[in-house]
Amino acid sequence: MTDLLSASDDALARAVFNSDGLLPAVIQQWDTGEVLMLGWMNREALRRTLSEGRVTFWSRSRQEFWRKGDTSGHAQYVKSAALDCDADTLLVQADQVGAACHTGARTCFDGRGIDVVTGTRPEAEAAADPTSTDPASADEPKD
Amino acid sequence: MTDLLSASDDALARAVFNSDGLLPAVIQQWDTGEVLMLGWMNREALRRTLSEGRVTFWSRSRQEFWRKGDTSGHAQYVKSAALDCDADTLLVQADQVGAACHTGARTCFDGRGIDVVTGTRPEAEAAADPTSTDPASADEPKD
Repeated sequence: MTDLLSASDDALARAVFNSDGLLPAVIQQWDTGEVLMLGWMNREALRRTLSEGRVTFWSRSRQEFWRKGDTSGHAQYVKSAALDCDADTLLVQADQVGAACHTGARTCFDGRGIDVVTGTRPEAEAAADPTSTDPASADEPKD
Repeated sequence: MTDLLSASDDALARAVFNSDGLLPAVIQQWDTGEVLMLGWMNREALRRTLSEGRVTFWSRSRQEFWRKGDTSGHAQYVKSAALDCDADTLLVQADQVGAACHTGARTCFDGRGIDVVTGTRPEAEAAADPTSTDPASADEPKD
């Protein structure tokens, strides 16, 4: 338990928040891989999410904590979480009860597709091992 | 073609950007469901992403457009895109060549898991139809 608390404390200390004190949290259904929604967390919302087994956001519009499901019953149970390479984005794998979206849709993106021009990787790239990396990747700056 | 351009134009008009003129874009591998990374787009980066078949971000640190893969070769080919329910977050399903992360990792979250307290839905909820919605869901404010 000491190790667990230490790990969360480390994440809380490392997490990078924007000028409003928030970071974006991507919530993904742990078993299907669906991206359910993106919400925002301040440090306390992050602490609660990492320690309570339930996802808590900070509501920007209402300026209050928002534990998902307390009003709707559509809770998000935390399965795992990760901070990205520069620690300014959180990914939460969760078990979503019912609808993630306040509209009643399963995800906040359902039925909201945009017509786009699609792209396809050149055959040479497709033939290469997609998991391979090359030294040049380290040269690409992040964000 | 006219319809396609109109649909993109509509998305560009509807998209909601923050006070810095940016919106978060979640990039997901279209076939495996992996969440690869989160980047930021201004309106022009969004326009390019929707119309060029390749993902383009706005680099906050360098203050310049950043078409993923131009330096590293690790391009993101757009398969589909959606704006969320309040049009302030983009989800892009893409085909990632090689590593999404500038560190050379496949995703920006790989190996960056945090020890968390996990949660499990009560049995009664688990037994219910997970796709069902109830009227209360409409009462839950978004963000």
